[in-house]
Amino acid sequence: MERIDSTQNARVKNWGRLHQKKGRDETGLFLIEGMHLTEEALKAGIVETIITDTEPAFAFEHIVLTTPAVMHKLSQNPSGAHVIAVCRQLKKQAAGNSRILILDDIQDPGNLGTLIRTAVSFSFDAVYCSEKTCDLYNEKVIRATQGALFAIPVIRTDVEKLTAELQRQGVQVVATTLQEADPMSAVEAQPAMAFILGNEGNGVRPSLQKAADRRLKIEMNGFESLNVAVAGGIIMYRYRGQK
Amino acid sequence: MERIDSTQNARVKNWGRLHQKKGRDETGLFLIEGMHLTEEALKAGIVETIITDTEPAFAFEHIVLTTPAVMHKLSQNPSGAHVIAVCRQLKKQAAGNSRILILDDIQDPGNLGTLIRTAVSFSFDAVYCSEKTCDLYNEKVIRATQGALFAIPVIRTDVEKLTAELQRQGVQVVATTLQEADPMSAVEAQPAMAFILGNEGNGVRPSLQKAADRRLKIEMNGFESLNVAVAGGIIMYRYRGQK
Repeated sequence: MERIDSTQNARVKNWGRLHQKKGRDETGLFLIEGMHLTEEALKAGIVETIITDTEPAFAFEHIVLTTPAVMHKLSQNPSGAHVIAVCRQLKKQAAGNSRILILDDIQDPGNLGTLIRTAVSFSFDAVYCSEKTCDLYNEKVIRATQGALFAIPVIRTDVEKLTAELQRQGVQVVATTLQEADPMSAVEAQPAMAFILGNEGNGVRPSLQKAADRRLKIEMNGFESLNVAVAGGIIMYRYRGQK
Repeated sequence: MERIDSTQNARVKNWGRLHQKKGRDETGLFLIEGMHLTEEALKAGIVETIITDTEPAFAFEHIVLTTPAVMHKLSQNPSGAHVIAVCRQLKKQAAGNSRILILDDIQDPGNLGTLIRTAVSFSFDAVYCSEKTCDLYNEKVIRATQGALFAIPVIRTDVEKLTAELQRQGVQVVATTLQEADPMSAVEAQPAMAFILGNEGNGVRPSLQKAADRRLKIEMNGFESLNVAVAGGIIMYRYRGQK
């Protein structure tokens, strides 16, 4: 087992760069923290190195034993971490298209992570994100997924081209919006559906609202305001996939 | 209009103490930031003072004009704020009991705020929080409510006594849990219902699960894991109140 004692070690410095999007993009790597996420990442086969300052409880060959000071330097948690894993970014393809989630410029990392977690729970096949959606490998996103990130293809793409392509494949594309939309109870489940959720402030961009086959609104009274991850949860539950 | 130029001013120091729970508890006051929340708080009639470093656009008598340095000191936002309002904590009573949300030790401020926002959107009558639920006047809670906090009674109480009292009033109390629970589609809507959502890590405490009239589970496949604010959203949509 390798041992690193210095916060100035070159590998430690390289791992530290993974806290920035630039460092993640250049290397195709990202960091996760904690036992639970590390176990999920091991199951998914994407772990490159496990870094720990305690007795390692993993049957894994690339473990680096280090000091609390190094762990503190690498952790995003103010109270530190005992296990951090360096992981390879997934490049999964969607295996089916019966239930698809499309995210149009979601900005909040917690919302993005929660939507991915919910998509897995309701057997969606894939999550597509517009190019301006926040970075997938941001620590807050990963924490909010609770490990679900490793269980579903999450693909950054041009969502306008994607919408056209899905429609060619016979997928019904549904945009969520408050204007000129049918109440959700009036939108029947179809064998293949894709749901577009919009930016927290601006909603789904007009061109996608126009391109969509249907427009859906969650029935509400008065206040008419839902967090996008909550709206996504209500929709994904109603149209959940079969598995 | 009053003017304060110094960050060392006694009133500024007192307002700064409202960032801590202790300061809020002792005074019954709390701070909010931004035009949108301030407008909502004015509508609710709970604003004591508006503090701003720009031309004030409010028809309100207690406005303090100050410097960007004071605003920066009082803001929780790294990029500062131009409007901050000092507000009085609400002590509303529930006006009805046909749809009640009970939160058992919710820890995450974003989850608490999102649940309150959702409760307003689906016409719930009140939100009750256990004594260990995170502080309601935390900035992150208020931000996540998007102003909904001022539109519904949110009451901190002994939730075990509350459950017994609601049952005496004929309210059906439903605990959400994954074990020995009926799927949501099998739990019919009743005229008066209360839903208990549990702590992010531990769920609903066993004594409340036992006391509840029914146990409800959201149907899922595989991953079986939902964020509590998403679970609450799915439940509140299904059993939404009439208004």
